[in-house]
Amino acid sequence: MSAFLLCPDAFLSPLEIEAAVTRALAEDLGRAGDITSIATIPEDVSARAALVARKAGVIAGLPLAAATFQKLAPEIEITAHAIDGTSVATKTELMAIEGPARAVLAAERTALNFLGHLSGVSTATHEFVRRVAGTQTRICCTRKTTPGLRALEKYAVRCGGGFNHRFGLDDAMLIKDNHIAVAGGIRAALERARAAAGHLVKIEIEVDTLDQLREVLDVGLADAVLLDNMDVVTMRKAVEMAAGKFPLEASGGITLDTIAEIAKTGVDYASSGWITHSAPQLDVALDIEM
Amino acid sequence: MSAFLLCPDAFLSPLEIEAAVTRALAEDLGRAGDITSIATIPEDVSARAALVARKAGVIAGLPLAAATFQKLAPEIEITAHAIDGTSVATKTELMAIEGPARAVLAAERTALNFLGHLSGVSTATHEFVRRVAGTQTRICCTRKTTPGLRALEKYAVRCGGGFNHRFGLDDAMLIKDNHIAVAGGIRAALERARAAAGHLVKIEIEVDTLDQLREVLDVGLADAVLLDNMDVVTMRKAVEMAAGKFPLEASGGITLDTIAEIAKTGVDYASSGWITHSAPQLDVALDIEM
Amino acid sequence: MSAFLLCPDAFLSPLEIEAAVTRALAEDLGRAGDITSIATIPEDVSARAALVARKAGVIAGLPLAAATFQKLAPEIEITAHAIDGTSVATKTELMAIEGPARAVLAAERTALNFLGHLSGVSTATHEFVRRVAGTQTRICCTRKTTPGLRALEKYAVRCGGGFNHRFGLDDAMLIKDNHIAVAGGIRAALERARAAAGHLVKIEIEVDTLDQLREVLDVGLADAVLLDNMDVVTMRKAVEMAAGKFPLEASGGITLDTIAEIAKTGVDYASSGWITHSAPQLDVALDIEM
Amino acid sequence: MSAFLLCPDAFLSPLEIEAAVTRALAEDLGRAGDITSIATIPEDVSARAALVARKAGVIAGLPLAAATFQKLAPEIEITAHAIDGTSVATKTELMAIEGPARAVLAAERTALNFLGHLSGVSTATHEFVRRVAGTQTRICCTRKTTPGLRALEKYAVRCGGGFNHRFGLDDAMLIKDNHIAVAGGIRAALERARAAAGHLVKIEIEVDTLDQLREVLDVGLADAVLLDNMDVVTMRKAVEMAAGKFPLEASGGITLDTIAEIAKTGVDYASSGWITHSAPQLDVALDIEM
Amino acid sequence: MSAFLLCPDAFLSPLEIEAAVTRALAEDLGRAGDITSIATIPEDVSARAALVARKAGVIAGLPLAAATFQKLAPEIEITAHAIDGTSVATKTELMAIEGPARAVLAAERTALNFLGHLSGVSTATHEFVRRVAGTQTRICCTRKTTPGLRALEKYAVRCGGGFNHRFGLDDAMLIKDNHIAVAGGIRAALERARAAAGHLVKIEIEVDTLDQLREVLDVGLADAVLLDNMDVVTMRKAVEMAAGKFPLEASGGITLDTIAEIAKTGVDYASSGWITHSAPQLDVALDIEM
Amino acid sequence: MSAFLLCPDAFLSPLEIEAAVTRALAEDLGRAGDITSIATIPEDVSARAALVARKAGVIAGLPLAAATFQKLAPEIEITAHAIDGTSVATKTELMAIEGPARAVLAAERTALNFLGHLSGVSTATHEFVRRVAGTQTRICCTRKTTPGLRALEKYAVRCGGGFNHRFGLDDAMLIKDNHIAVAGGIRAALERARAAAGHLVKIEIEVDTLDQLREVLDVGLADAVLLDNMDVVTMRKAVEMAAGKFPLEASGGITLDTIAEIAKTGVDYASSGWITHSAPQLDVALDIEM
Repeated sequence: MSAFLLCPDAFLSPLEIEAAVTRALAEDLGRAGDITSIATIPEDVSARAALVARKAGVIAGLPLAAATFQKLAPEIEITAHAIDGTSVATKTELMAIEGPARAVLAAERTALNFLGHLSGVSTATHEFVRRVAGTQTRICCTRKTTPGLRALEKYAVRCGGGFNHRFGLDDAMLIKDNHIAVAGGIRAALERARAAAGHLVKIEIEVDTLDQLREVLDVGLADAVLLDNMDVVTMRKAVEMAAGKFPLEASGGITLDTIAEIAKTGVDYASSGWITHSAPQLDVALDIEM
Repeated sequence: MSAFLLCPDAFLSPLEIEAAVTRALAEDLGRAGDITSIATIPEDVSARAALVARKAGVIAGLPLAAATFQKLAPEIEITAHAIDGTSVATKTELMAIEGPARAVLAAERTALNFLGHLSGVSTATHEFVRRVAGTQTRICCTRKTTPGLRALEKYAVRCGGGFNHRFGLDDAMLIKDNHIAVAGGIRAALERARAAAGHLVKIEIEVDTLDQLREVLDVGLADAVLLDNMDVVTMRKAVEMAAGKFPLEASGGITLDTIAEIAKTGVDYASSGWITHSAPQLDVALDIEM
Repeated sequence: MSAFLLCPDAFLSPLEIEAAVTRALAEDLGRAGDITSIATIPEDVSARAALVARKAGVIAGLPLAAATFQKLAPEIEITAHAIDGTSVATKTELMAIEGPARAVLAAERTALNFLGHLSGVSTATHEFVRRVAGTQTRICCTRKTTPGLRALEKYAVRCGGGFNHRFGLDDAMLIKDNHIAVAGGIRAALERARAAAGHLVKIEIEVDTLDQLREVLDVGLADAVLLDNMDVVTMRKAVEMAAGKFPLEASGGITLDTIAEIAKTGVDYASSGWITHSAPQLDVALDIEM
Repeated sequence: MSAFLLCPDAFLSPLEIEAAVTRALAEDLGRAGDITSIATIPEDVSARAALVARKAGVIAGLPLAAATFQKLAPEIEITAHAIDGTSVATKTELMAIEGPARAVLAAERTALNFLGHLSGVSTATHEFVRRVAGTQTRICCTRKTTPGLRALEKYAVRCGGGFNHRFGLDDAMLIKDNHIAVAGGIRAALERARAAAGHLVKIEIEVDTLDQLREVLDVGLADAVLLDNMDVVTMRKAVEMAAGKFPLEASGGITLDTIAEIAKTGVDYASSGWITHSAPQLDVALDIEM
Repeated sequence: MSAFLLCPDAFLSPLEIEAAVTRALAEDLGRAGDITSIATIPEDVSARAALVARKAGVIAGLPLAAATFQKLAPEIEITAHAIDGTSVATKTELMAIEGPARAVLAAERTALNFLGHLSGVSTATHEFVRRVAGTQTRICCTRKTTPGLRALEKYAVRCGGGFNHRFGLDDAMLIKDNHIAVAGGIRAALERARAAAGHLVKIEIEVDTLDQLREVLDVGLADAVLLDNMDVVTMRKAVEMAAGKFPLEASGGITLDTIAEIAKTGVDYASSGWITHSAPQLDVALDIEM
Repeated sequence: MSAFLLCPDAFLSPLEIEAAVTRALAEDLGRAGDITSIATIPEDVSARAALVARKAGVIAGLPLAAATFQKLAPEIEITAHAIDGTSVATKTELMAIEGPARAVLAAERTALNFLGHLSGVSTATHEFVRRVAGTQTRICCTRKTTPGLRALEKYAVRCGGGFNHRFGLDDAMLIKDNHIAVAGGIRAALERARAAAGHLVKIEIEVDTLDQLREVLDVGLADAVLLDNMDVVTMRKAVEMAAGKFPLEASGGITLDTIAEIAKTGVDYASSGWITHSAPQLDVALDIEM
């Protein structure tokens, strides 16, 4: 079951899966492995098990869960009943697992930790997405991710219906207050950025006020503008001023409570760090039958 | 500034710091690095900056933050104003950073992601610890951690005043329902476990009912007992039955709302998965002056 | 053939096998590989071969040998005639290998080095175990292992019938003379240790004299006591004094000549560094037919 | 203190030191580190310590020991009193270490494991070398090394006064019985080998009998000949037959008891697998003063 | 000497330097290191050496050269006389090196291989840049790079005055003929791409004909257009048609002979695979004085 | 399809293939993968494709190309129509690939970069080999290789009909001018080298003049001599002087224009750095049908 098939609308690198699963299993197995199961369960016992969502949510991480089991014992058989990006109801069975009981039990927690964490991110993203339904606003993430899990969490954001902001410092420019200050103003910063950027690099610039937005409009070299911590009234004026010349991204302290109102201002994107750095995990369990 | 000095009551491996920082920086720098700063900030500009807690909490991760800056540019100077494990008020300055502006800006987000995530864990732990003050109950973690961050999150739990449960499947035995079922009952499971375990391995067993606890008391080979999803009334009876013969650990759905009542039952440990898998990050920022 | 099947009573991590085999093959293949076989043996020649114990002993390492051959050429077929932990007589055939001759020859030395080294450890362990038969004394290992091979050698100790002491500094506490001295005595050291340790961490303390043992008994916080370099007379008195309150481990210069007498003192464990750091390899060979 | 200075007559790669030390420390520190020392020793306690040879022998591994301490805490100060390759008497102090007590204790066992193992190899080698003093025979090693430690053990052989055989399958050709059989005889095997080998690759061929040696002499393409398991009488005849045309290497079951007699036959090299795969460790200890 | 200082207008990741230098040194040192220098040069001999350009060119790779020497022996002193991106005349001294002779000689070839290869790329790039001087055309690279050296070669392109195209498949979209065919035409492909892309991802589309370019202009969702293998007459018409609506990139078989004429058509970018996959190395040598 | 079958006369380590392919794919996929194909091509589209040589040449790298596709999606089917080391005409189909279109497209560039680069090396080598046909001169490579690709490029040299010089500093000795100068002359350098070298290490010495060659002949300890930058007249005299006592290697600035004449002097080897460090890639493409 190729990772290409389990994540249809986003990309989860087979290399990243391999590395993440190896690292996570290593920290759980330690040096001696599942000493409880080896002591209490004979080697020839088989187990059938089911990954089950205990709460409703949007699933992300099934290819990682599958890879976790098969990394420990390639003979474990996996049958997927869902794919990443699906909204599921409570008690939905996501995947069936069958194989040596010792291996199934040894992989259980690691597989669940992947699935719970990433489904937490996709479910949180989806909560935002649901609240902007009917508007043109898209939800996107930030670089405020859990260290070491950037690619996986950005993937989960896609599974939840969100869009990805920059993956890192290198795939787009985002000019912030410090850059503007050192460069000597908005015009200078944008000119330097455009002179350095190749034709496949977008430039976004952060503004705090409508005056700054005006200046960006005058200079005209930006591909997108980030409205930093603006109230909705100002935001609405920003939308009018920009008049569709470039996408506007609302950013700063956006919550599930405020997102609907923000979307009504007409901004193109609303970004949330919370969906990656603080989303609670989705409760997923492994029901085992031996 | 050795990691040994910044984390006085717990251990943060220099090897783990090196590996985690390298991995996290790599995912943020990507292949082209901080293209915005290179374009807009001349190479000879210096920056002075301060890591500041924007909310009150318990700090964890300063050695990682320091290592992140110095990995990018060894000439960056770090002055610590706090150490891990300290409770800080809002707006407390944690660490001063001084060095090449491009390097400071390039390391900023990665350093903050470490500090925000781990301080989130230690702050959440401390919330539980605060609520059991005056009782004998200790707060401990579980293996429900974020994949790849086990050692770091367990360290943050210690910083928050909590105790560590198993680090993995290999450093203690925890006999659960499936093990008991396959082994043929509590006695058989405990006997097999004790026969296999060396003299430096503890054995904990999970029980759902007081009858099971009675049987564990009769068999007498366990070092600790986990009370799985018991209500407080039953828990109190369990404490009476055990009569200090071995530590009791309350587990299952424990929240900040229920922890105080649980502690009053007299259990020795209460474990929470939430403090590692779902703790919201602590808001930490970098104030920069160039 | 899953590693889970070839090592029934101990755990050999598939991750560790993969890493160890890759590292060992890399150092033998170098940059140009088996230049002799490539020069002298046509690519289409097949080989049938048998791993044979040239001396009697206890086998450990078959999953590593199998993985070595298959890492070089997945099409090599392996048939196991023995499993790890088995005592075999001289000239016992352990495993049959069939596949491309070049690959079989290129993997030969690496596979034998694993099998010879680990079977050396398990055979040495078994020698000790044999000499304590009929007593309650168990043989255990130490942290005096070959650098980089800790997990594999500890596994081999299990295959030889021994028990594992700590896998590292982190899975149990062992309070030694330096700790006692700095802490200000046995009581202070034990109290500090117990205050820091969670409920799943055992505490062992090293004593040189019966007076020290008495103090440990008085303090009462230890899970086990290590008798350091005691003569058998003192050891016997220690057993009487302890009266089963906690396991006693004899340690220090224990040899095949002295182990039987030590076991008769009634100690629960006798630990040997020699079985991991100095056990001579077991002579295993590959008989090839092309 | 550069590794280049501590190993004057052989090469110990800084890259290999870094990798080996990291791997070995990781397996001892595990995920939680030296929990005993953290619990019992305050963070500000310093330690002075000395690496001391408890038995006479030839030292190898000091750069690894030094690197182990400094990897854990760069502020640990090292003063070398010996260099690798030196024969030392019992109780010789090899190296002084000073720094944070917790770090010194945490690194102790790993440093000793390196030093004990490699000094075991160099001491064993030196035992052979001593017995061939006054003859032209040189002692050399084989590829029968401990998995993962090839480069380090070959280095230790040099420290003990021995010479290195091939480091792997790729740096010289060694034609064995299987190669000869498949190639269709000694001449065919040598011709194929010479045709494939570049001008910087030596070719050695293994012979069991004087007839085979005669054939090798006739063909004339070999750079060296390995006399496999010959008795000393035959060996002496082989030396006469070869008459210095190429170096002869005695191989197969050579022990400290037989080496002197073998050397008297006039062979140029005698190789021993025992010095790397079965040499007992040299007893080295860390004397600590806090 | 921080990498941040030696590469002022582009980014060379310290992490990438560390990894590339370690890998390259490892393949040259092998398992036994520089056996010639160890045999012939006493350990206490010092060397002074100079990296010298034997041909005129544009330099790239000095931070890698410096790191190579210091990785082998941190006590080697480096004095830079040039920085990356500088055009130098024949016989220009680029960097002075002083330290242990054995280490200087052991690092020599690896340092030169980095410098020769990357300066080859930057010199080749500069040749193209020189030929388009006075036009608005910028030279850019492609993804046709040497495997494993993508980030380093893209950096060298910047040093040579070129611009970077995509670093990989993930930092911008490039819609090619196959994508158009499967999607069902240019409009469908562009619409799908825009729907999937976030606001910081640019979309370039490849066209073979002016009709296709017309369609792209009509659809209007592209950020840039790649003119694939067009002759200069057609290219000129394309420039007229596009009328500055988006940047045009000429691509396909562009050589030093044709670049000037292409630039005159008014295209914004001309991309060359040759500058990364086939640029001959720049001749750089190490002059040593011992 | 084992790597052992696709490279019959040279060795391409499965470990090296795995590492090189993983590294190269990682740098092309980045964190988000092939975002263009995911956006425009439905997941269930299959592709059939053919690797085709667009120019005549000698092929090297097919096992790497195959591994690249299968690393991304193991279900991709590969049918080889050629093996490494074959001379092919323009438009020869080398390999058929069939599988998920997204995976085929994502792997395309990486596979081509391997094949183009290594076939460039083997084709360049073959050009030299062709020009020395009929003489006894063999073409060999140097250590002037692309950083990180030493083993692969040396393999490609073999595929092109060349021979391998040293793989690194450690598998043979090459005494150069600096070694001679420090050692105190040719005799001293050779004596030191021979005293240090084991019996399986060849010693080559570099000479600039016939006088030096004379001295090497007098000393008599060398296995080969490198004639450094000699003109063909001198070279011819060197051949006469050496009279077959050891192989002579011509080195220094050898080009396709001069090689034939050099070969006529009778030297045994002519080495070229150009074939590895500056060979232009061979044009190979992937023709896709979806």
